Amino acid sequence: MSRAKPGPADRSITVGSDFLHLDVAEAPPGGRAAWLADRLRAAIADGRLPVGSRLPAGRVLAAELRVSRGVVTEAYQRLGDEGHVAGRGRGGTVVVSAPAVPAPATPEEPPAPGDVFIAEPGAAVFDLLRSAPARIDLSPGVPDLGAFPRAAWLRAERSVLGALATPELGYGDPRGTFPLRRAVAHWLARTRGIRADPADVVVVAGTAQALGLVARVLSGHGIGEVAVEDPGSLGARQHLRHAGVDTPPVAVDTQGLRVDELRALGAPAVLLTPAHQFPTGVVLGGGRRRDLMRWAGEGGLVVEDDYDAEHRYDRPPVPALRAALPDGVFYCGSVSKLLAPALRVGWVLAPPRYRDALVDAKRYADLGNAALPQLVLAHLLETGDMERHLRLLRGRHRRRRDAMISAIRTHLPGAAVHGAAAGLHLMVTFDAPLSDRELAAAALDRGVKVQPLSWHRHRPGPPGLVLGYAASTPGAIGEGVAVLGEVLDAATPGRRRRRTAEP
Amino acid sequence: MSRAKPGPADRSITVGSDFLHLDVAEAPPGGRAAWLADRLRAAIADGRLPVGSRLPAGRVLAAELRVSRGVVTEAYQRLGDEGHVAGRGRGGTVVVSAPAVPAPATPEEPPAPGDVFIAEPGAAVFDLLRSAPARIDLSPGVPDLGAFPRAAWLRAERSVLGALATPELGYGDPRGTFPLRRAVAHWLARTRGIRADPADVVVVAGTAQALGLVARVLSGHGIGEVAVEDPGSLGARQHLRHAGVDTPPVAVDTQGLRVDELRALGAPAVLLTPAHQFPTGVVLGGGRRRDLMRWAGEGGLVVEDDYDAEHRYDRPPVPALRAALPDGVFYCGSVSKLLAPALRVGWVLAPPRYRDALVDAKRYADLGNAALPQLVLAHLLETGDMERHLRLLRGRHRRRRDAMISAIRTHLPGAAVHGAAAGLHLMVTFDAPLSDRELAAAALDRGVKVQPLSWHRHRPGPPGLVLGYAASTPGAIGEGVAVLGEVLDAATPGRRRRRTAEP
Repeated sequence: MSRAKPGPADRSITVGSDFLHLDVAEAPPGGRAAWLADRLRAAIADGRLPVGSRLPAGRVLAAELRVSRGVVTEAYQRLGDEGHVAGRGRGGTVVVSAPAVPAPATPEEPPAPGDVFIAEPGAAVFDLLRSAPARIDLSPGVPDLGAFPRAAWLRAERSVLGALATPELGYGDPRGTFPLRRAVAHWLARTRGIRADPADVVVVAGTAQALGLVARVLSGHGIGEVAVEDPGSLGARQHLRHAGVDTPPVAVDTQGLRVDELRALGAPAVLLTPAHQFPTGVVLGGGRRRDLMRWAGEGGLVVEDDYDAEHRYDRPPVPALRAALPDGVFYCGSVSKLLAPALRVGWVLAPPRYRDALVDAKRYADLGNAALPQLVLAHLLETGDMERHLRLLRGRHRRRRDAMISAIRTHLPGAAVHGAAAGLHLMVTFDAPLSDRELAAAALDRGVKVQPLSWHRHRPGPPGLVLGYAASTPGAIGEGVAVLGEVLDAATPGRRRRRTAEP
Repeated sequence: MSRAKPGPADRSITVGSDFLHLDVAEAPPGGRAAWLADRLRAAIADGRLPVGSRLPAGRVLAAELRVSRGVVTEAYQRLGDEGHVAGRGRGGTVVVSAPAVPAPATPEEPPAPGDVFIAEPGAAVFDLLRSAPARIDLSPGVPDLGAFPRAAWLRAERSVLGALATPELGYGDPRGTFPLRRAVAHWLARTRGIRADPADVVVVAGTAQALGLVARVLSGHGIGEVAVEDPGSLGARQHLRHAGVDTPPVAVDTQGLRVDELRALGAPAVLLTPAHQFPTGVVLGGGRRRDLMRWAGEGGLVVEDDYDAEHRYDRPPVPALRAALPDGVFYCGSVSKLLAPALRVGWVLAPPRYRDALVDAKRYADLGNAALPQLVLAHLLETGDMERHLRLLRGRHRRRRDAMISAIRTHLPGAAVHGAAAGLHLMVTFDAPLSDRELAAAALDRGVKVQPLSWHRHRPGPPGLVLGYAASTPGAIGEGVAVLGEVLDAATPGRRRRRTAEP
């Protein structure tokens, strides 16, 4: 049944239902006032009811539409609340402002592949690299995501949702849920030699957030400088700088961070990756470790980024620095390399004198991590699911590492391989007549994504590549490294002949 | 079988397996080197092997323990890597540093109830209030958490985990996953009159993070002042200030923010809650709305905190300010009042000229929200589960609101009730011979948790309470308000008689 049969008055009204193409049959049951307000608002927006024009009197429009007077009154009231119309007493209801028409949205343009390597790497560099299309992705930083324990996660989630107390869905402790803080304390004791109380653990949104929070805490205590490894993670340096601290470089050699250089620099704090240096893969030597501990004992502050310490292939990982010096070490870990970066969960242990400031920083950052994924993760850690997953990963990663080393021997015979004992990536260096950024750009043009070592250098050094193997199959790794070999050969005339002579 | 039968050499070694109580039978199969390193490390830590002492020669200890020489070599190597021992050539292997013994953990002490109201509210005030024990919790800010759609959440999670592409588990777009940004754009169009493109939506960790990010973006553009409502959310003010902007107050009256005061103040930006002012519950009047839009059109920036706009009981909510002025409004919303604060998910739309800076701020904050909960939420939004949940909540909340209003009429007959048309809380004001903080402290001593209005005031004003009703049953609400009445009566001798005369 149409409710919009023309009534007797419709011809005499200039601005009315006819002019506005109002058809009350379109209105959902019980939603006529909202519908009428929507239609009038649209008419105001597109100029059919310009500012200054008068709406029909309520009783007239109600009769015309065959709706109750209340429907029209409520629609006018809504438009009045929104500021579009105003009552003018005997002057009726007048349009006083139009809704804005938003500017057309800019389409999401994919960047041209290779462009990412031309300019100096900026804030969005990793987003650009990620969104560049590629057939084979050998960029470092992710574990085998195909092995993510989806079934175990869902089981744990079901168990968590079943057992959850209602208040746990409210605002929570900014340090994180107690079950996860306890599970992390146990995990760190078992795997990293750290003795920590759950009260010391602050759950954060990954190492990126950890570094930002630590930098803000240090700034707040008058520390405006955190020395970093060279080469060392570009991303980590960007996060520290954005949080307002300077990042002077300290060289890394085959024993890890040059503690003598750190001393000479006089920086009050240092960020390092002692268990598996990024990107070189070096483990901090025992002598360096002692020397660093001495430096910390004299008042230096250590920020320990323990990003992939669990992935050691030859023997158990060296315990964390934090295990030896809880008063001098901010310890940062995460599940990004254990499970998946998309979970955005990590943890920080602060030296006791900075703990409250760290909790404040986390509170002001976001009031604490989301509760459900924390509880699911606690479940995985405490039931042994995480340990099983890590064992599975180690086997898969080791095979992928071996595939990459073998492919490098075949296709990049002149390259030196660094850091094969642990982790999710290799570093290769080589002599080449082109920069590593040019090499990475040429590889991306051929569908293979890698990171140039120079991104992670502060000071000039030999060219190289940082190659992730954990997230690709042995076949893809072989193909990808072969493409790198072709690109390098094409740039090195003498080498092409040499390679074709090989079996 | 015990592997620790005493060998022929055991009596002749001073620092050896006997002295160290080494029993290789304790070692897990295949883990002897790690076990031996652990035991030696423990002995170094507790002083049985002090710094300067010499470890037994490898072949001697191996023979004594009846393990292979390689096991001992590897254990010594580990301790060397850790910096605890060092080879001294013919001098053997010497202990050079001891692991630290962490200070005993401080127990997590619950604060004394009522203490939270004594001092000026500091950074941890809401954490203190939350952790104070109480029988009945009438603090505002949470919906009915008992109604959280656990089954729908788990169903959606199963569906998400089943359909997830592997790369979605890696690092992602700092703005959030596309499915959630699209679902939020649709949701905002349907419920808040906002036309937005998914590219404009930045998913954040709740409104707390939103305010911090917006404040940093504004600071970065030279805007160091954001006017706020008075009374207005203490938490919001704390977050802005922590992020480095000043927060001069602008009065709120029965029509909402006094735009004339804002103009006179000359602040470049303002944070407000136009759909349902916190804590007064006022809806910004049509005239004020127009006036604010004019102020924004002249260059003023609006930060719209749309924290509980969906919970309107009498009629559909007024569209967001953002709908009328996308170029001048930062829009912040979240699921904290729709589903649960523990999810830590919200969204921000920035004016186009600030969009890139907002994305940078989110990237540096945490590289983007966790992916799985975003995808689950997108599922709930697009399948209609969220709308069903909201309808369920509205009915429950309305009954709880009615229960609270009726309890206030009975037990606080002299109090004025504000903001009953929408939201999850009421504000009550009253004449009393004690401050609202004293009242809140006395109520907490009797097991009822409420927030004093003065927490949310910048400038002095009449005492009052902010009372959340959404998260408590009608019975608990009645009981809690009765306790407030008793506390107020006890402080007001004349009132007690008046109340006992009532039916």
